[in-house]
Amino acid sequence: MRGDELRIDLGRLRRDIEALAAIGRDPTGGISRPAWSPAHEEARAWLLGQLRAAELNPRVDPAGNVFGRLGEGTPVVLTGSHIDTVPRGGPLDGALGVLAGVECLRTIAASRIRPPRALEVAAFTDEEGRFYGFFGSRALAGSLDRALAERLTDPNGLALSEAMRRAGFDLARTPEARRDPREIAAYVELHIEQGPWLEAADVPIGIVEGIVGIRRFRLTFVGQPDHAGTTPMDRRRDAFLTAAEYATKSRELVVRGGQGRAVTTIGVVDVWPGVPNIVPERAALLQELRDSDPALLERLATRTLQAARRVARRRGLVLEVTHLMRADPVRMSPRIQAAIEATAAGLGLPTRRMPSGAGHDAQILAAVTDAGMVFIPSQGGRSHRPDEWTDWPAIERGANVLLGTLLHLASGDV
Amino acid sequence: MRGDELRIDLGRLRRDIEALAAIGRDPTGGISRPAWSPAHEEARAWLLGQLRAAELNPRVDPAGNVFGRLGEGTPVVLTGSHIDTVPRGGPLDGALGVLAGVECLRTIAASRIRPPRALEVAAFTDEEGRFYGFFGSRALAGSLDRALAERLTDPNGLALSEAMRRAGFDLARTPEARRDPREIAAYVELHIEQGPWLEAADVPIGIVEGIVGIRRFRLTFVGQPDHAGTTPMDRRRDAFLTAAEYATKSRELVVRGGQGRAVTTIGVVDVWPGVPNIVPERAALLQELRDSDPALLERLATRTLQAARRVARRRGLVLEVTHLMRADPVRMSPRIQAAIEATAAGLGLPTRRMPSGAGHDAQILAAVTDAGMVFIPSQGGRSHRPDEWTDWPAIERGANVLLGTLLHLASGDV
Repeated sequence: MRGDELRIDLGRLRRDIEALAAIGRDPTGGISRPAWSPAHEEARAWLLGQLRAAELNPRVDPAGNVFGRLGEGTPVVLTGSHIDTVPRGGPLDGALGVLAGVECLRTIAASRIRPPRALEVAAFTDEEGRFYGFFGSRALAGSLDRALAERLTDPNGLALSEAMRRAGFDLARTPEARRDPREIAAYVELHIEQGPWLEAADVPIGIVEGIVGIRRFRLTFVGQPDHAGTTPMDRRRDAFLTAAEYATKSRELVVRGGQGRAVTTIGVVDVWPGVPNIVPERAALLQELRDSDPALLERLATRTLQAARRVARRRGLVLEVTHLMRADPVRMSPRIQAAIEATAAGLGLPTRRMPSGAGHDAQILAAVTDAGMVFIPSQGGRSHRPDEWTDWPAIERGANVLLGTLLHLASGDV
Repeated sequence: MRGDELRIDLGRLRRDIEALAAIGRDPTGGISRPAWSPAHEEARAWLLGQLRAAELNPRVDPAGNVFGRLGEGTPVVLTGSHIDTVPRGGPLDGALGVLAGVECLRTIAASRIRPPRALEVAAFTDEEGRFYGFFGSRALAGSLDRALAERLTDPNGLALSEAMRRAGFDLARTPEARRDPREIAAYVELHIEQGPWLEAADVPIGIVEGIVGIRRFRLTFVGQPDHAGTTPMDRRRDAFLTAAEYATKSRELVVRGGQGRAVTTIGVVDVWPGVPNIVPERAALLQELRDSDPALLERLATRTLQAARRVARRRGLVLEVTHLMRADPVRMSPRIQAAIEATAAGLGLPTRRMPSGAGHDAQILAAVTDAGMVFIPSQGGRSHRPDEWTDWPAIERGANVLLGTLLHLASGDV
């Protein structure tokens, strides 16, 4: 059998997707496997077992990344994604890319094809950023900010270092996870789109041209705690009402100036002291902005922070700004885009080139190797929620495009 | 010595205030003695010790209220306040009224004056509403809503019944705390103003004419969780941004329609799922409105709830409203106001009649007996915060007005 006739086994992939989806199943709905949590560690152990059963040389690095490998020598062709989830997330975000990668390596291993280049599949740690977004792929790429990592906590105040310690890892050893860029020939990742466009256009395969940049910051409005009954409205410096006023303005700014594409989300809100009868002294908003145009992203970040300062000043509050994340927009490798396109064409599948509105480990890998991504449609554009889904034929198509692309890249021809 | 020559011992009162302020001292600032917490139970035990030492017949009822008593028979003249605090509160809110009451009874006990009516001092449970505002005074007045009490939790989800159980009490037995109204001749409470007016006017004694009404409700905006990167702004149903838009409108409504006096506070804000990269599905605001005019309060509550529904509908969200508290404005007894005024005049102290913007146990007692309140100035109008304070001479003046008023009332002359 020639490489372009090889196909993945959907039944086997489906069993893996269903098995992983049962780990971290949240009684309140969805799947919760935040990085370094017991559910995440259980998923890691399960994945290592699957790699062992497939004789794919399982390995865990000091950043908690899991690898499987087929073949010897460097540079390798790398695929993968992540097995951590957002709280109450769905079964495919991340898991699909890892498990399809495992399935591709298994499929090749079971064939008589032995590509010139070794193949690796990776599950990167904390892509979703419970503590530090893209922690695992950053560690591999050598772009982890150690000083930042030492300070980071989850939304409940648990330190990353402590969470790693509980899972049996040591934050101080993460630099050892770095890989020499010369050892990685290419990276390609299969993922659900997580947006509405492929489904709306009825196109089965998306070829990612670039990934949006992200700015994430915490804005803390500091006012004055006062008795909620006895302090007249005009004497208050109410941190929550000021933060709310800013949030409303910030949406307007992004909708008006975002060219119909930029987005902003305030997903975490903390109010102190957090009781009904005290005027809030502090209100902290964790906000992010995303866009694929670096200049527009910068402009929106500047304007929204200016608006925050202006609202705070007018209401007599102090504003504290902490920059938490700055991921620049990233271009995907043209040669990998071409490899995906050629593979899809060979399978008779229409494609569309498109940006990714979500961040992915591929954007981190793009700094050290040629990186690319394959998208398949998301039902209703839904993701990061329990009803995130894509039908099995779409998953089979995506996994076969990944398989063909990996074989292309591992042949050393592209 | 005649009753109108009797004076409290400021040194002794000061030692009590300082001793109680050391219980629940919060390492992050202020004093934290939420009802039923270990710190609160420690304060209760300390207070019982003080009453025992003063031979004031200490007693705890099934609602956790602490009583001391001087004299026999009914009806009694009752004074008191509460020893629970808001988180990171100050040393005087509640504590002053209880400890000045104890000091008045001690002072009378040490004199040769034996008023015809017995005197009692009470420390009522959970005035601040960690679980259920005015729990103790409601239990005494027989106005506790048992069905509501069974459902109530603190902001962390701890059930009232469980918190009581941990402190050695049984929620099911609270009806036994009810006192026959005929047993209580009058209730008078000393408190700091918690607002700026007495200090600004340089008046040492406030005579409370009425206490504002409170409406407290939880507004939960229910939208849709979506990926924070891939969902275009115009497809989102963002619960936090919708709640923020409403909060801003609500402030405008209250400032514009509140006659410079009504206030609103959103002190508790919860956002789900509460992570940076998911558009919030749910945002819950715990909001209260206060005013002394029942018609105005009703009008503001109606308008602000209408605004919430309008904003939710326009943004495609569902609004859930839970009414948590409805305390109507209450008038203080004219005969007690007159007794306070006569006492202050006898001490050469100017007075001012004023409303109370804060809720007090006196408003609950007013439903079953003649109730009144004495205010002393709050430095900078500050309360419910660590730097809540009033100087010692002001405290001495307030305690002596309370002493004289209690003697008036216990004489049976008024």
